Amino acid sequence: MTQGPLADTPAPPYYAVIFSSLRTSVEDGYAAMAQRMLNLAAQQPGYLGVESARDDGAGITVSYWSSLEAIRAWKENAEHREAQRLGHAQWYAAFRLRVAKVEREYRL
Amino acid sequence: MTQGPLADTPAPPYYAVIFSSLRTSVEDGYAAMAQRMLNLAAQQPGYLGVESARDDGAGITVSYWSSLEAIRAWKENAEHREAQRLGHAQWYAAFRLRVAKVEREYRL
Repeated sequence: MTQGPLADTPAPPYYAVIFSSLRTSVEDGYAAMAQRMLNLAAQQPGYLGVESARDDGAGITVSYWSSLEAIRAWKENAEHREAQRLGHAQWYAAFRLRVAKVEREYRL
Repeated sequence: MTQGPLADTPAPPYYAVIFSSLRTSVEDGYAAMAQRMLNLAAQQPGYLGVESARDDGAGITVSYWSSLEAIRAWKENAEHREAQRLGHAQWYAAFRLRVAKVEREYRL
């Protein structure tokens, strides 16, 4: 991907998937899978961008989408479903996944 | 604050302020001000929680609020306004601030 760390989303409205997580200590392919999912998401219809940060406390990845239908299709992507299964089973100790409609945006 | 790194928000709908930023190399009180703003936000009416992560690429802080009015009041808090001014002037090279309505939430 050629994008920077901040997403150049279009004018609202559009949708955000806010994924906040605590990792387990299990690596076992996590980094490669996380990168693969970022690349695969970027190829989906309706994808608008992603922002991600992780430190010792938590990780937050926010992906942006043109519609709820685009989010639903990504959720049901077969390769993504396998990543979700592995995430539940071994990589994440806890997470919150929130689907939100972006109504306003400001930039510096 | 006694909360963990993931916010225990109530059932949707509620609002999220997604603040994604790139820092300058200027420290000059940033860490103390960031902590002060987290503490001050937690005292505001309508505050529901916060999640934050920062790594070398970017920082993401998502705060959760009961209403747009609560977000507006926090934005206009005098001490917060001074922090915003300093953020524009010296701490942030770039940011995106998005106001979004959370419609669904899933947990592990």
